[in-house]
Amino acid sequence: MTLSNPLETSPQLKTMLAAVESACRESLNHKILLSEPAIFQMLSYHMGWDPALPGKKGKRIRPLLVCLVAQACGTDWQRTLPAAASVELLHNFTLIHDDIQDQSDERHGLPALWKIHGIAQAINAGDAMYSLALDHLWRLRSAFSVEIIAQCSEQLTLTCLHLTAGQYQDMEFETRPVIRDVAIAGTSGQKFPVTADEYIRMVEGKTTAMLRACCNIGTILAGATEEMQATFDAFGYHLGIAFQVMDDYLGVWGDSAQTGKSNATDLINHKRSIPVIWGLERSSAFQQRWVNGDIQASDIYLLRDMLTDAGVASDVLMLAKDHTLKAFACLQKAITLGAHTSYLPDLTEWLLNRNK
Amino acid sequence: MTLSNPLETSPQLKTMLAAVESACRESLNHKILLSEPAIFQMLSYHMGWDPALPGKKGKRIRPLLVCLVAQACGTDWQRTLPAAASVELLHNFTLIHDDIQDQSDERHGLPALWKIHGIAQAINAGDAMYSLALDHLWRLRSAFSVEIIAQCSEQLTLTCLHLTAGQYQDMEFETRPVIRDVAIAGTSGQKFPVTADEYIRMVEGKTTAMLRACCNIGTILAGATEEMQATFDAFGYHLGIAFQVMDDYLGVWGDSAQTGKSNATDLINHKRSIPVIWGLERSSAFQQRWVNGDIQASDIYLLRDMLTDAGVASDVLMLAKDHTLKAFACLQKAITLGAHTSYLPDLTEWLLNRNK
Repeated sequence: MTLSNPLETSPQLKTMLAAVESACRESLNHKILLSEPAIFQMLSYHMGWDPALPGKKGKRIRPLLVCLVAQACGTDWQRTLPAAASVELLHNFTLIHDDIQDQSDERHGLPALWKIHGIAQAINAGDAMYSLALDHLWRLRSAFSVEIIAQCSEQLTLTCLHLTAGQYQDMEFETRPVIRDVAIAGTSGQKFPVTADEYIRMVEGKTTAMLRACCNIGTILAGATEEMQATFDAFGYHLGIAFQVMDDYLGVWGDSAQTGKSNATDLINHKRSIPVIWGLERSSAFQQRWVNGDIQASDIYLLRDMLTDAGVASDVLMLAKDHTLKAFACLQKAITLGAHTSYLPDLTEWLLNRNK
Repeated sequence: MTLSNPLETSPQLKTMLAAVESACRESLNHKILLSEPAIFQMLSYHMGWDPALPGKKGKRIRPLLVCLVAQACGTDWQRTLPAAASVELLHNFTLIHDDIQDQSDERHGLPALWKIHGIAQAINAGDAMYSLALDHLWRLRSAFSVEIIAQCSEQLTLTCLHLTAGQYQDMEFETRPVIRDVAIAGTSGQKFPVTADEYIRMVEGKTTAMLRACCNIGTILAGATEEMQATFDAFGYHLGIAFQVMDDYLGVWGDSAQTGKSNATDLINHKRSIPVIWGLERSSAFQQRWVNGDIQASDIYLLRDMLTDAGVASDVLMLAKDHTLKAFACLQKAITLGAHTSYLPDLTEWLLNRNK
């Protein structure tokens, strides 16, 4: 089943997306950046706005989530645009640093920022993006009380702390042994293979924290009740887990023509995604091949089949489905609490069923 | 003349310094960090608190400045400790990233964080330190209004944006030609040798922005008048320029036994400090030797003498003195406005005359 992308089919969502994009662009017009055009250009390039080198842009899911949740809770979404731009900048700060950390050469079809300007300047550009994101939040001052903005600001800094915890774990996983019952010595004691529980904990930091923050900022700006806030927070949580698990699924079984990245990448990069974690636990053939190392693109179909044969594909989909259903249940609950969820179910469905 | 360090001789300043250190330590006890002990340990190590590897600590000048300025403006300095800790964490976030960017192997006599944990984890640890710094500021909530804390928060994020601009320039200087009247092609047009004006602009971002922020946060927390705020802001500005110029002076003419770092480092690392900028402008012998490259420790005395002969040493000291006098004039003005500057003049004098 191929779902249509509501961002392309719904005029209202297209309008919102255009407003979000425009708010993000506006956020770069900061006097300090304008006085240092080189940093402005680096950030602009990363966002896909370099007129000479326009890249594919990100999906802008996170700022849309801020606007849609605020709208669902009865607030004019246009008032929330500075916060929407903030979360998108924050997300992109993490991408700039991620690419250095993962040594990823490309982002949205163009060379990653560090490949052009070097690691030192790219670290600095990421730091600038982070600072800009937090500074930009205060543009809400004309429409919201300082107490409300302060709550949003705390959400963002706390989210970044969660992100660094998740990022730490993701990188630390690469140093772990792959063979069950075989521990290796680490700097703080013995190390064991990554478990599914540890994976979920890592995703809670790396992916869900940000989506929860978007939901929380949306409800905070709408002045929603505590129960409504908790409901959307839970929605963000399950959406985040389902989104990451689907991403990992597509990283192995996705159609590269549709995902836009080679479906071999996750296996070739030895990423400890949930399919790999379960494959190492359940398939000795997969484990053996993994331990041997040097996985080439030509090995992918074999590895994929090993995972499928061990029942990993269906279990990964089931995990994603479990959290998807929970996310929808949260939206249902929000409706009973008085929310008008409008495009949130469509967007959720598309996000979690894309490219199947 | 060797001035005694008031941080070692004044009981009151020692008490304040101990309270600052304790507040900084307390700031690491964040539930997210406690649940990820590896990041906690990295930050703790960087701060010089690893019980197994205690390093020399930083001077903690910035948090002291927050406390002293707030005290000067009539507020109990102990109420400002969370803000003091925030600025010290923020400063240390920049140091963690600086060391990666400059490829500095050591910090306070121990291996730099990235030398132990690698670039990827050190970038992440820096990001965690930044997030923690901003989050920690909200601990002021029990003693200050949200509006006051919001103003401090804006100061910090704006300061970081200034810092990234200064850091960009500092790194970009290394790509500039050294020979007068000879331009080289850069990514955005021709590049010319670094001028003293450009140097000052870089220092405004890299050093003064943070010291101004400390002063501003001190006056904001004290609820000082706008005139008082502007006076301490100007004090922070001149202190910052004088401090950096003196640092550059000591980087060439300092006594390594007293500065704790080799006085050759700045010349060997080809750092475009103000002595070097003026040396390249004024001394063709210095320029020639600089262009030849591969400066060894044994060349330092010759290079230093070339700079001294070209009048650079005295001009650098004069520049520092000019800003020092202006900083003292600001303190005098603050006194006429009703401030009780207590240890600020002593601390300023020591900072700007250390190791002469």
